[in-house]
Amino acid sequence: MNIIKGGVTTPKGFLASGVKAGIKKSGRADLALLYSEVPAAAAAAFTTNRFKASPVKVSMAHINGKDHRAIVVNSGNANCANGKIGDRDAMKMTELIGKSLLLDKREVLVASTGIIGVYLPLGKIEKAVPELVGELSEAKGTRFAEAIMTTDTVKKELAVKIKLDKVTVTIGGACKGVGMIYPLMKTQRHATMLSFITTDAAITKRMLTASLDEATGDSFNMISVDGDMSTNDSCFILANGLAKNREIKGYGSDYRKFTAALKFVASELAKELVRDGEGATKFIEISVTGAKSELDAKAVARKISTSNLLKCAVCGEDPNWGRIVAAAGSSGVDFDPNKVDVYLGNLKALSNGMSVKGLDKNKAHKLFTKRDVYIKVDLKTGRDKATAWTCDFSKEYVAINSEYST
Amino acid sequence: MNIIKGGVTTPKGFLASGVKAGIKKSGRADLALLYSEVPAAAAAAFTTNRFKASPVKVSMAHINGKDHRAIVVNSGNANCANGKIGDRDAMKMTELIGKSLLLDKREVLVASTGIIGVYLPLGKIEKAVPELVGELSEAKGTRFAEAIMTTDTVKKELAVKIKLDKVTVTIGGACKGVGMIYPLMKTQRHATMLSFITTDAAITKRMLTASLDEATGDSFNMISVDGDMSTNDSCFILANGLAKNREIKGYGSDYRKFTAALKFVASELAKELVRDGEGATKFIEISVTGAKSELDAKAVARKISTSNLLKCAVCGEDPNWGRIVAAAGSSGVDFDPNKVDVYLGNLKALSNGMSVKGLDKNKAHKLFTKRDVYIKVDLKTGRDKATAWTCDFSKEYVAINSEYST
Repeated sequence: MNIIKGGVTTPKGFLASGVKAGIKKSGRADLALLYSEVPAAAAAAFTTNRFKASPVKVSMAHINGKDHRAIVVNSGNANCANGKIGDRDAMKMTELIGKSLLLDKREVLVASTGIIGVYLPLGKIEKAVPELVGELSEAKGTRFAEAIMTTDTVKKELAVKIKLDKVTVTIGGACKGVGMIYPLMKTQRHATMLSFITTDAAITKRMLTASLDEATGDSFNMISVDGDMSTNDSCFILANGLAKNREIKGYGSDYRKFTAALKFVASELAKELVRDGEGATKFIEISVTGAKSELDAKAVARKISTSNLLKCAVCGEDPNWGRIVAAAGSSGVDFDPNKVDVYLGNLKALSNGMSVKGLDKNKAHKLFTKRDVYIKVDLKTGRDKATAWTCDFSKEYVAINSEYST
Repeated sequence: MNIIKGGVTTPKGFLASGVKAGIKKSGRADLALLYSEVPAAAAAAFTTNRFKASPVKVSMAHINGKDHRAIVVNSGNANCANGKIGDRDAMKMTELIGKSLLLDKREVLVASTGIIGVYLPLGKIEKAVPELVGELSEAKGTRFAEAIMTTDTVKKELAVKIKLDKVTVTIGGACKGVGMIYPLMKTQRHATMLSFITTDAAITKRMLTASLDEATGDSFNMISVDGDMSTNDSCFILANGLAKNREIKGYGSDYRKFTAALKFVASELAKELVRDGEGATKFIEISVTGAKSELDAKAVARKISTSNLLKCAVCGEDPNWGRIVAAAGSSGVDFDPNKVDVYLGNLKALSNGMSVKGLDKNKAHKLFTKRDVYIKVDLKTGRDKATAWTCDFSKEYVAINSEYST
């Protein structure tokens, strides 16, 4: 696998664009379009929140179709809690793009991110569609990545190349965060994490869905910025087959290679989200090992990743590891506290449930002064493991989120 | 029911004290003792965290005994994650008090609050015991309430009087918070919320336990400061019978009157905790109505009470109610989003899942400028309800918790 400079338009046959429709008060780009020159197999994972935004409901309906060609995205407005008006507006977005690109609306997917409970300025979107479609280009992948941003401070995109039976297959992706980030998405059932992945791989819709499920489970579904699950989280993948590899139809070695690469792309994008988390000054990786099941390992890692107290401690570079212990214990997972080890980097702080006497506090502090902080919890009751990622909790987070809608 | 000035020593036959043992670096009082002149029925609710602090384990063992006489409490050190040494130290605290007061150690309960993973300075405690016991007095209820404080800025105590069959019965209480506050306690099975309630009521241990269960379920178990569950949360009640009322032996009218008064005391103390939550500038009450079950109502209310985004919005006096919707939808509770109403005070913001057009933004903002903010979510799918309490999330919270152990 080779990492290459690029994003959603790096795989063959994908075009993108991003324009200013005037949805955002800031006047920044807020409408984006991704387009495949040929019909693509599509899979998507959506938020499990009971309050699903209208674009999520429309995309959940459309994803059941056979082939897809385009994804339209607006930032600055989540189009959530707007009832039937919101549903109609989201559907209208797919119709506008469909009409302009001569596609059936069901070939178009849609995503939104921004404030909840404000009606979408559909007139502004309608006016911007000609420019949006006109700008479609292989060169505009980065413009797409910029137009989907909300509180993000940097665009997030990535591409990789792999060989499947001597054929080069490319996967590209872009995503945005960076508040209300604690996704738990499911494919075809269910941020505002928005993530868009493209590939020129030939792969059936069924295997693409399976692959996306595996990839999101270990990447986007393992990150937290603030522990708040969004109504709009969506992760899309389009596979248009233009690489002309032998089509992936089952769980063979090509599937495994493809899924490994997809996991890599999804994990790197997920980690970029956390690094750019609202107010973040630190990146925290939490590894849980020795669990009875992967679900248990994930539950413990995810619980620790949402501990406000731990995140404040990391912000203050205070190696107050007792907060890791308290968070692990409140995960609802059954384990023997008298077996548990906790490490800060390579430094053991807790051994068999007991505070390590003579723990070098200066060394511990030094580990917490770094940009990246590594925490490991070994439950020692099984063989399963998981890794979660989060950022620290700073005064800046509070500042950003106390002034959002006003 | 009459609310009276007082605390844990207001009911007949209770003495208390608080001294400086030198556990806290600040030099403030950090060792407290509560004592009943006659044997008392005791009940307690403890944290459901898998990592239970040593004092919790010792009190869980001792609470199974018939009668109890004393509770010893230290602040400044949680005595958690200290393994067998911690267990031995917590037991030793009960032995030291037992020896000094001529009690069996099993008649003594114990609680600790403070940093996790630091061994208890037992020598300092041992040295302070004679003074602690010597100071026991009816006049020292407030001293007790002060000595149990950690990041609390005010002591929290309360007393009420009720009549049971013409006999006056008194209930008094004291508690402390105010970080790592998201208790979920169970009686006899399982903050650092510490709460101590005394009463001179005559009531059997079985009915006292039932009454405490009802009271904690609607009070301490419905508050959140930061969503972090402690390893040390404990709520104790001692009932010494000195009021000479007809002993409460079953679920009759005396039980109901007593439980109503106990719920009141527990709720008021719980609300005081939230008002004094770390960095808090606002008090938030979240009422959920129309749920299919009380459990559902509690789950939705509790989930909303832990939304960092909502808490930041309240801090900034920004009526960004979409964050309430997102939090409700991530509670895991099954409801129809198209039926839900959301109110800010008496102002309807969401009606049948739809953003209310023409919502008066100035009125909404004004409601959020008050010290107390009221939020109501009506699920309209049943008849059950629940209320949770939380505080806002301020930069001061981050400041307090990024500098705790260093």
